Amino acid sequence: MTVQWNDLIARDARALTASEIRDLLKVADRPEITSFAGGVPDPALFPLDTFKTIYHDLTSDEAAGRRSLQYSISEGLPALRHWIVDDLAASGAVRSIDNILITCGAQQGLDLLARLLLEPGREIVVEKPSYLGAMQAFSMRRPTYVGINMDDDGPVLAELDAAFAGGARVAYLAPDFQNPTGRSYTLERRLAVLEIARKYGAVILEDAAYSKLSYEGDVVPSLLALDEVDGDPDAGTVIQLGSFSKTLVPALRIGWVCAPRTVIERLVLMTQASDLHVSTVNQEVACRAARDLFPGHLETLRDAYRHKRDTMLAALDEFMPEYVSYTRPEGGMFIWLTLPENIDSRQLLAQALEDAKVAFVPGQAFFCDQSGRNTARLSFATEKPERIRNGIERLALLIKRVHNQ
Amino acid sequence: MTVQWNDLIARDARALTASEIRDLLKVADRPEITSFAGGVPDPALFPLDTFKTIYHDLTSDEAAGRRSLQYSISEGLPALRHWIVDDLAASGAVRSIDNILITCGAQQGLDLLARLLLEPGREIVVEKPSYLGAMQAFSMRRPTYVGINMDDDGPVLAELDAAFAGGARVAYLAPDFQNPTGRSYTLERRLAVLEIARKYGAVILEDAAYSKLSYEGDVVPSLLALDEVDGDPDAGTVIQLGSFSKTLVPALRIGWVCAPRTVIERLVLMTQASDLHVSTVNQEVACRAARDLFPGHLETLRDAYRHKRDTMLAALDEFMPEYVSYTRPEGGMFIWLTLPENIDSRQLLAQALEDAKVAFVPGQAFFCDQSGRNTARLSFATEKPERIRNGIERLALLIKRVHNQ
Repeated sequence: MTVQWNDLIARDARALTASEIRDLLKVADRPEITSFAGGVPDPALFPLDTFKTIYHDLTSDEAAGRRSLQYSISEGLPALRHWIVDDLAASGAVRSIDNILITCGAQQGLDLLARLLLEPGREIVVEKPSYLGAMQAFSMRRPTYVGINMDDDGPVLAELDAAFAGGARVAYLAPDFQNPTGRSYTLERRLAVLEIARKYGAVILEDAAYSKLSYEGDVVPSLLALDEVDGDPDAGTVIQLGSFSKTLVPALRIGWVCAPRTVIERLVLMTQASDLHVSTVNQEVACRAARDLFPGHLETLRDAYRHKRDTMLAALDEFMPEYVSYTRPEGGMFIWLTLPENIDSRQLLAQALEDAKVAFVPGQAFFCDQSGRNTARLSFATEKPERIRNGIERLALLIKRVHNQ
Repeated sequence: MTVQWNDLIARDARALTASEIRDLLKVADRPEITSFAGGVPDPALFPLDTFKTIYHDLTSDEAAGRRSLQYSISEGLPALRHWIVDDLAASGAVRSIDNILITCGAQQGLDLLARLLLEPGREIVVEKPSYLGAMQAFSMRRPTYVGINMDDDGPVLAELDAAFAGGARVAYLAPDFQNPTGRSYTLERRLAVLEIARKYGAVILEDAAYSKLSYEGDVVPSLLALDEVDGDPDAGTVIQLGSFSKTLVPALRIGWVCAPRTVIERLVLMTQASDLHVSTVNQEVACRAARDLFPGHLETLRDAYRHKRDTMLAALDEFMPEYVSYTRPEGGMFIWLTLPENIDSRQLLAQALEDAKVAFVPGQAFFCDQSGRNTARLSFATEKPERIRNGIERLALLIKRVHNQ
């Protein structure tokens, strides 16, 4: 008899479904489309020459070259973990390399933490809206989502408290230039979030993927940095996820988890069982690149992305009708549109691709409760400024036309 | 209150425990220890010069360089999948790139397939002994293991039939130069295994990580190549796992799964949710290296490892007492020792590290039922031939001493 695949697929694997949006957006790569859809860095900003030198030096060094082509430990290269620890310390978070696991992008960190902390039916608190990729990782554990609303300062505290009071013990939060809204938490809200988490002994998963892409205003300490308990790096309530994907290049697939040692020890065992370790050569190259390039390269990125953000905001101010509202992010890659209630952004996308030659991501997918039908995520990261302005103009024209129909 | 981590850890994550053997073997890296423990390729055989040229060419090409530093699709680079399809075709397995998913080493393939096909309590058939890393990936799904015994020609067919008759629908098999025993299946046994699997509509996960490391004898077709159903690449019963870790370098972390399209589509969704994709630059480099180096480099590897195998077998023949038996593998990296019943190989390891300055892996961990206390895995891949001979001599002396106590 033939294999009955449908009977064999496990329930966890069935929790994931192919996205119709993804299919629609397959055309977004075409040159005639101005794409605000991807959360993808501008490849023109990749430090290719530095990588050329690093690869040359590494492969010219017999011992280091062969070592970086061999298997390595699941924790990640000590030199890279030391760099991360020093970088965290500079932002006020005192941890040791025993608190760091190198992961295949922040996405693998999310997946490992979901496997560690979630079980079918267990509650996970997420922002409304929240990062889609995180919810995909969580969904393979078939949890129960508890969505909390956001205001301009961060999560609505009464809702966070109620979620924990209702039994949830894990929350996934992105306090810096969140994907998809670009919003950040104020310092006061961060402190209040930590206080509530501590009241219940709850764990905060802090996504810091965009934290270094700050274009204005004071740098606000991370939840991790604020999570200081008697100087003990293993006593806190915050687990932070970091990544080089937005600050160096995505293709190395280097992220990390910073967590109490007891968590890291578990995650190391899971990493051994799931993919052994992150590419040795990529860790070595990322470590050298971070040492060589930071902080200068970060300033280059900030200048370039700030200009793109300003271009998109200026175009939105100029062209969008007053019934469309949008965020004014101080960093990151995204602006969040709220359209009139009568516009479904998924339908709008189909028309935008066809008529306006513009792509964006409809907002609904970012809501755990499938609300937000009239919202959309725009990325200013990838397109050139002149295309950003023209694309926003065309999108605004389309929105006016659709609204008036 | 503080976080109660022990209450929060999910049951799946608890299924993994730290290995005491791994702790013991931490000293195996020391220069005074002759290590037969690691399943690690000889770094002296890494084609470092070719990698130097490939990295140079890639980073000198503005367009290809930037593209290879960017995000990519979860399926894997089409060029690399095409190379794999051509290579499979050369060995008699006709598939398309839609049947291939690139994974972070074969280990990630095992993990993804475990998440796809296993659930708590569901049965998985494994060889006795079987590859430890596979069982670690499976264990995170908390399955029920059904171990089947092996003879010199492959699995005992009556036991495989009984396992499927008892309800199991997934078997993990390594027909070529198996880790840990070095054993291979005969052609007749392969055909019989497939016939039994088809009788029950069962899935065979074929581990082909060592298949190209063949040192003598005819090349026997893979289960995948023999799994030909009406010329339909999506109708078969075999899912094959492959890897560049043993034939190119481990550090790129490039493996692949070859499966019917319906399986690949599911695995792609899971990859998006778990780590997005395998490093773009590593896929590009692996593709160029495979094109440049194969099959010539494979001959270099075979000559070097054949010599090491012959050295170890000659030393075993010369020094081991007649009450120790061992396999005579035709490929791969491992020889399997069976000691007298009164010797526990875990206790022997402690003495071997201390007295004989030799490391190996006790066999018990490779048995799903924790049998095999008097067995051990020896790798001939990493050490130089003169150290192999001397190490086996010292190990043989120790075994005689222990046996006579």
